[in-house]
Amino acid sequence: MTQIDVAKKGKYTKEMIEVARVEGVSKEYIRKNIEEGKIVIPANLKHTIRKICGIGKGLRTKINVNIGTSPDKVDKKLELKKLKVAVKYGTDTIMDLSTGGDLDDIRRFIIKNSDVPVGTVPIYQAAIEAAKRKKSIVNMTKEDIFETIEKHLKDGVDFITVHCGVTLESVERLKKEGRITNVVSRGGSFIIEWMICNNRENPLYTDFDLLLEMARKYDVTLSLGDGLRPGSIIDASDRAQVQELIILGELAQRALSNGVQVMIEGPGHVPINQIKANVLLQKRLCHSAPFYVLGPIVTDIAPGYDHITSAIGGSIAGSYGADFLCYVTPSEHLGLPDIEDVKEGTIASKIASHVADIGKGIKSAIELDKNMSKYRRLLDWKNQQKYAIDPYIIKKYRKSVKRYKDTCTMCGEYCAMKKVSKYLNS
Amino acid sequence: MTQIDVAKKGKYTKEMIEVARVEGVSKEYIRKNIEEGKIVIPANLKHTIRKICGIGKGLRTKINVNIGTSPDKVDKKLELKKLKVAVKYGTDTIMDLSTGGDLDDIRRFIIKNSDVPVGTVPIYQAAIEAAKRKKSIVNMTKEDIFETIEKHLKDGVDFITVHCGVTLESVERLKKEGRITNVVSRGGSFIIEWMICNNRENPLYTDFDLLLEMARKYDVTLSLGDGLRPGSIIDASDRAQVQELIILGELAQRALSNGVQVMIEGPGHVPINQIKANVLLQKRLCHSAPFYVLGPIVTDIAPGYDHITSAIGGSIAGSYGADFLCYVTPSEHLGLPDIEDVKEGTIASKIASHVADIGKGIKSAIELDKNMSKYRRLLDWKNQQKYAIDPYIIKKYRKSVKRYKDTCTMCGEYCAMKKVSKYLNS
Repeated sequence: MTQIDVAKKGKYTKEMIEVARVEGVSKEYIRKNIEEGKIVIPANLKHTIRKICGIGKGLRTKINVNIGTSPDKVDKKLELKKLKVAVKYGTDTIMDLSTGGDLDDIRRFIIKNSDVPVGTVPIYQAAIEAAKRKKSIVNMTKEDIFETIEKHLKDGVDFITVHCGVTLESVERLKKEGRITNVVSRGGSFIIEWMICNNRENPLYTDFDLLLEMARKYDVTLSLGDGLRPGSIIDASDRAQVQELIILGELAQRALSNGVQVMIEGPGHVPINQIKANVLLQKRLCHSAPFYVLGPIVTDIAPGYDHITSAIGGSIAGSYGADFLCYVTPSEHLGLPDIEDVKEGTIASKIASHVADIGKGIKSAIELDKNMSKYRRLLDWKNQQKYAIDPYIIKKYRKSVKRYKDTCTMCGEYCAMKKVSKYLNS
Repeated sequence: MTQIDVAKKGKYTKEMIEVARVEGVSKEYIRKNIEEGKIVIPANLKHTIRKICGIGKGLRTKINVNIGTSPDKVDKKLELKKLKVAVKYGTDTIMDLSTGGDLDDIRRFIIKNSDVPVGTVPIYQAAIEAAKRKKSIVNMTKEDIFETIEKHLKDGVDFITVHCGVTLESVERLKKEGRITNVVSRGGSFIIEWMICNNRENPLYTDFDLLLEMARKYDVTLSLGDGLRPGSIIDASDRAQVQELIILGELAQRALSNGVQVMIEGPGHVPINQIKANVLLQKRLCHSAPFYVLGPIVTDIAPGYDHITSAIGGSIAGSYGADFLCYVTPSEHLGLPDIEDVKEGTIASKIASHVADIGKGIKSAIELDKNMSKYRRLLDWKNQQKYAIDPYIIKKYRKSVKRYKDTCTMCGEYCAMKKVSKYLNS
């Protein structure tokens, strides 16, 4: 029985009860929205997760942190460090996007060491192994793809990205569109290469029922990947992107009626004035399935600072209803993130999700700001640490303060709050 | 003759012609909007500015960088470094907010060394000197205030912040409101302390005509400060803030009819879902005078990262019509910014202004992203540097790339753009 199966029977899983408790909503609210496909709880039946999370309607906006090796850098200890720093700064899930080294071993290692749900993109492994063993990605078989997926599910992965909407139809629309940056999704590009060279339809689309059957078995959440997401703001919201989204919406409906939890991945690069429309469109075309956005990044010209550009996009997308933000690090578009990048990316994404929650009117989020500001007025630095997204940085700054014990070194004796409190609060 | 006087006669100043050229609009467009008070060009008649800028309707969103000493840290060389780094990363103006050391000397030094317009907050100096020479801010006289202002104008300052809307009326509204963080504006707090202890109205309000007369003489732009801006998102858009804004709107109208350029300062701390309303309200109440926002910061709980929270707020405010963004550094709420803080703050603010410009539909801004993405697809790293907000960081990352000469180390051989281009662009 999957979460959806249980929900359809009007019953509650322990996961639903836990999510209801953490979010401060009723278990019936969670049940109903899981039944309707508006909330998912990524939790493989074979995986015991310490910090479970619900993603979707009315819940706090969640964030995901990508880690993983590259062919250039295979270091399990480094990946463990990335995992720990991401969890320390509050990520809700982890995705292992490894493409270098012993992929099975690394994935199992990350699952074993993660307190939070783990996601993967199995097509990476299928394609990379085909390239190695069969000389080219093009020689990968349908069986290679599904066997790799099965392996991931068996290992206890809680959600997988599957690029089911990259089809002959949507790729044709892509060709007609004429983009600046054609395809920037790695998984999407593997599938397109395969489709074009083999002149065949995407197996993840033709055999979607098989995928559902496998996902059902472990109650794994499908994250329907946007292989055709725009890679530049000029390409945003074009016919290729929307065509893929339409297909994903249809597939989401099929998943739901088969008792398989599903979320939809979204862009990518989007100008600030198109974010609202993108969220509304996804919610409508996918019948309110949870929306998992990759950023969005609101300008192409800030490499080195894409944790900031995606915090801008993520805040806005979240405030309009996006449910799940994939973090972006300062190294995006430039290189593989190191520990510092992971930390900066996680914090920026955490800020975005919190800002979005304020916009969504989530009470527990607003309460944090209220408490923070109360202690800020009191110049109570210890208590400010309790409510800060990064308590450690306050500590660091306070250490350097010598002359003024209560105020900060910006205004010192000319602290406005200190001054005015004397007159207004007597 | 001030810019407005010339504009009213249907003529053009060399400043108008230069701004029109830089912005790619007609000189008549600039003239008309200066006449209507919708664009300002801060330029003291006594100051030769190398990089002049227009602020307001239909123009690129501008940014300001605050520098200056504190009682704790007086170092002219450090201030010069801050100035240089801010200009290097593209600030449009500089404000000297010094509160420590020989304030006259530092101000003149900054004016002398700045390529961009310089702003100040004369009340700081008036209050600090009164505290030193007369034992308390409370003993400051009206003459002290206006003599200090005169000194700043004579030195060639291009715009000054004057907290004219902190009046007995608006402070009374503040008291009734019951805020979490009463007043966070330093200038505002000086005036409130003075008003309450002397039981007198704010001289910057009672003698606004004198202020206009002085500003006219040098054609200095008045930046009407928001002394009652909210210091926490819970306090945002309250009666005290809006009361002050109404008063500032009236004063802006008086300034315009006296030929004095004026802009309006705005918050501060604002939740994401109130930013649009704040911009619309300012534009309406102040008859479309340029809006100079301090952030806005969209959450209170991210000290150490307020360059990010303000980039979020600034992008949104700008996209809805705010004209001028005051940068915020990572050290905001914690301490005085160092060089690295100034750099990070300037870049974050530059990102926000650019994102806003994309939202406003400014063609030259969108063109940058288009070119960046074109060269990104071509994996042409040299040309990407030309369009990046921070070219130096691309260089730094590229240096570490060994194995893959064309792609970045994130995807390496699995670069989606490289892969797909082969199939789609043949």
